[in-house]
Amino acid sequence: MKGGSDEMVAKKNNLITRLNRIEGQIRGIKGLIERDTYCDDVLNQIAAIQAALNGVGKLLLEDHMRSCVVERIESGDHAVIDELLVTVKKLMK
Amino acid sequence: MKGGSDEMVAKKNNLITRLNRIEGQIRGIKGLIERDTYCDDVLNQIAAIQAALNGVGKLLLEDHMRSCVVERIESGDHAVIDELLVTVKKLMK
Amino acid sequence: MKGGSDEMVAKKNNLITRLNRIEGQIRGIKGLIERDTYCDDVLNQIAAIQAALNGVGKLLLEDHMRSCVVERIESGDHAVIDELLVTVKKLMK
Amino acid sequence: MKGGSDEMVAKKNNLITRLNRIEGQIRGIKGLIERDTYCDDVLNQIAAIQAALNGVGKLLLEDHMRSCVVERIESGDHAVIDELLVTVKKLMK
Repeated sequence: MKGGSDEMVAKKNNLITRLNRIEGQIRGIKGLIERDTYCDDVLNQIAAIQAALNGVGKLLLEDHMRSCVVERIESGDHAVIDELLVTVKKLMK
Repeated sequence: MKGGSDEMVAKKNNLITRLNRIEGQIRGIKGLIERDTYCDDVLNQIAAIQAALNGVGKLLLEDHMRSCVVERIESGDHAVIDELLVTVKKLMK
Repeated sequence: MKGGSDEMVAKKNNLITRLNRIEGQIRGIKGLIERDTYCDDVLNQIAAIQAALNGVGKLLLEDHMRSCVVERIESGDHAVIDELLVTVKKLMK
Repeated sequence: MKGGSDEMVAKKNNLITRLNRIEGQIRGIKGLIERDTYCDDVLNQIAAIQAALNGVGKLLLEDHMRSCVVERIESGDHAVIDELLVTVKKLMK
């Protein structure tokens, strides 16, 4: 993700805001565990964090594919496809 | 998760240690994004955190099913199955 | 899943109907591939089948947990929890 | 997937073989359910089919990205990225 344009700065701030929230949720879970909170409640928090993290991943993937992937393919650098496939397969079910 | 027994304390410490690591990884990703790191590298970090978070979820689910779920079923409280199903379905693909 | 009661028969028929549909979708995909259909269309069919298969899995898991799992725990056979954990972890993300 | 080259034919045959196997597994599960087989065994079969179906999806995605996606980007048709993102997000966790 290249800095500079307002749009890029807005995207970065959005991602940082989401990650701050996730970081807070992780700290929250630690507190729940330290206080012996009922496990089912903690598991539901984990499911919520997974969903939030997936959201960040999808935003990043989208930005990556619309910028770097297109640019590298257009410049004849097809190795980006190999790299992208490895990453996408890790994010797939 | 009930406190008290050495085993329970060890389990809690294991979960807290894992969550501390995940918290650090989340902070790490924020730094990568702030420094405009290549997206593919960030995406791979996200996949690693998802795997680590899944690991915490599986440990918690295991402990929950071996303790609270068994105890509540044995005491005739089958509502725990409804509750568990809702949670497990959120964690399923 | 025990046979006999109307409810059980209805559940079985529901599962068989869903699996028949999935079987037809699989055959459909084979036809798409044989006719060199645009891959993106085929991938979307695969995502649809995954969702349908998840639906069958969740129905089965629900029925299993409400019947066999409860019965075996109530009869003191806690080995069912070990078995269930192995299976649920395969179905988790 | 374009037909014609030996490599393409081999890829198609590989996919068809895998899908034939999955189709057989689906029929197998129907039989297990009809015979009131223990649910846990059926659930494990479903997990195996999910893994096999994911395998087919990953092969197709790989071939799609190396052929159509590259060709359309190189010809200036960036709409393929929008399309690919929709599909990949369905296949993601």
